[in-house]
This record gives sequence, structure tokens and C-alpha cells, in this order.
Amino acid sequence: MPKIVDHDERREQLAEAAWRIIRREGLQAVSVRNVAKEAGMSLGSLRHYFVTQEELLSFSMRLVSERGRERIQKLECTGNARRTAERIIEELLPLDEERQAEAEVWLAFIGGTAASHAQELKLQVHHELFSCFRVLMQLLEDHRLLKEGTDLVLESRRLHALVDGLVIHRLIDPVENTAEELLRLVNDHLDRLMV
Amino acid sequence: MPKIVDHDERREQLAEAAWRIIRREGLQAVSVRNVAKEAGMSLGSLRHYFVTQEELLSFSMRLVSERGRERIQKLECTGNARRTAERIIEELLPLDEERQAEAEVWLAFIGGTAASHAQELKLQVHHELFSCFRVLMQLLEDHRLLKEGTDLVLESRRLHALVDGLVIHRLIDPVENTAEELLRLVNDHLDRLMV
Repeated sequence: MPKIVDHDERREQLAEAAWRIIRREGLQAVSVRNVAKEAGMSLGSLRHYFVTQEELLSFSMRLVSERGRERIQKLECTGNARRTAERIIEELLPLDEERQAEAEVWLAFIGGTAASHAQELKLQVHHELFSCFRVLMQLLEDHRLLKEGTDLVLESRRLHALVDGLVIHRLIDPVENTAEELLRLVNDHLDRLMV
Repeated sequence: MPKIVDHDERREQLAEAAWRIIRREGLQAVSVRNVAKEAGMSLGSLRHYFVTQEELLSFSMRLVSERGRERIQKLECTGNARRTAERIIEELLPLDEERQAEAEVWLAFIGGTAASHAQELKLQVHHELFSCFRVLMQLLEDHRLLKEGTDLVLESRRLHALVDGLVIHRLIDPVENTAEELLRLVNDHLDRLMV
């Protein structure tokens, strides 16, 4: 009987090996050869899953975006819309080791290659993230928690920019930007939007 | 008589050649060899100015930070503190070709190499930028333009994160994030801080 291999799982293992290399050595060190070595797999086996470095990098970046989205979708809406909004934002901030790794890969990717396929993927992930903030703002609006006359699109954009900025600040300067400090800033921001 | 060479100018020319490579091909393409070629200089001549790729990259990043700071220092304080605050922010947003280039180099650098010398420089540039926002907030406070009870440090951090986020959003998605849209968002943000 042939071995049963979960191909999705294998792909994710390879993407995670790529993440480790990105975090340790930067995006430029990700080659199919290095990733195969990091994952303890032969180059031939890796090529069953990814033929080019480009495919591997794109998959690794998509995985960051998907994991965040999955965590957000799993959040139970407790009826407390404000708390749900906070939890959505918390899933997008690098507050633990897992989200730190995701944020580092995201930053390496958006700061990295200017090739056109990468630009498209950067744009796609950017729009997916924006939609999280748009959904969050709509949730607050539907619960009549926002100040009257709030421009939902403008506030979604502002919050999105603020959170992306905070992600970067935490990666650059984790001493000043502790988890508590980031949450304090985000909560203060939400306070000002709300009635 | 020996040729008179302005060494500072030559160093800046080399840094700008490095910028062009970063913008076109990404940080990983910056080698002393490539930069010499881009600048139309021999490798031997380049080595009078920069011995290693690390020195060249660090200088290129510092130059981004210095140019922004110089532009801010040159701003005439018209007595209109709000307008001065806006102009400081405008100098840090990629609103024209020059500031776009600087922002791309900055993003490539902060997303790039995780080597310890680079981390130090990222932190240094980050603190220099923060001090611009801190000065701006103090200026508004000194002119009694801020709402009573404003936490100057918190608001400086929030504005810094917002602006860094907007820089990234404009680089990723310039179609949605036009210069007008960014300025509208920043002005709206200042409006809310002020009495």
C-alpha cells in the first residue's frame, strides 16, 4: 500500500520551513534548495509541491493571510460587538510567537521583491486585511456603537493604517511597543470612535 | 593638480545608485559590484567610499532618514502651527517621486535583513522618525491647539503608527491611496486632536 500523504499538510510544512528561513536570514535566502534542507526533504520531493521559488514564496505569504482570517472567522460573536472588534484586531497584531512569525513574513514580503506577481499578491493580501477592518467597523455600526456621522470607509482605512503601523513598530522596537502598550493604543482609538 | 572630488557628494551618488537597484530589483540585488556598475564607477573606486555591502546599505538607509529630516528642518515656521504640523507629515509621506523612492528604500530596509547591525539602524531611524511626531505634537500643544488632557506621547505614537501605515498603503496600493486621500485622512486625524 502506498504511503498516505496529506498534501496540504506537507505544503504547509514547507511554507513554515520557508517562514523560518525568512525570519532567520531574510527573504533573499529562500530558495527551493534551502527550504528542502530546512524541512528535511529532498529537492525532488519538494518539487512535487512547488516547482519554483516564486510559487513557494507566494504560498508562504498566502498562508499568513489565511491563518489570520481563519482565526478571525473562528471568533465567537459573544453579542459584545466592542469586544469582538478588539479580538479581531488582536488577531492581526504580533502579540504572541505565532503572530510574530506571521507579521515578520508579511513585512519581509511587502518590503521584498518588486516583481509583478509579488505586487499582485501584496495588493490581494492588503485588500483582504482591509476587509477585516471594514467588517469590524460595520459590526460596530450595526450595534449602533459608533458616533453619529462616522464615515465607515474612512475609519476602516484609518484603523487599518494604524494597525499596520503598530505591527511594524512592534517588530522594530518590541521594548517600547509591548503587547499592553499596543492594546492600550488600540482600545483608546476604539473609545474615540464610539458613543 | 589633482582632481578635486567632493567625497560626500560621491557617497550620495553611490547611495542613490543603491536606491535605484533596491527599487528596481529589491534589497537582495545590492552588492558593491552592482552598485559600482549602476553608478558607472569601477569597483576599486567604490571601495574608497564603502568597503562592504553592509556599509553601503547602512549609508543608503541613513541618507533616507537625513533627507527627510533636512526637509523638515528647512520648513519655515509661519506662525501657523497647524499648517507646520501638516507640512512635517507631508514631508514623511510618499507624495512625489523623491519621497516615493525614500519610502521604498525604507520599507525594503525594515522588511529586509535581520542581521544585528541592520536591527540597530532600523531602531535608530524609527526613533528619529518618532521624534518628528513628538516635536509636532509639542508644537501643537505649545500653541494650545490640542484638546485638554491630550496624552502627548500616546498621540505622537498613534500619529507615527498611522503615518507609517499610510506610507505602506500608498506603496502597496497607490490607486486607492492617492495623495489627496492620504492628506484627507491625516487632516481629519489632526482635526480630531485639536480644539
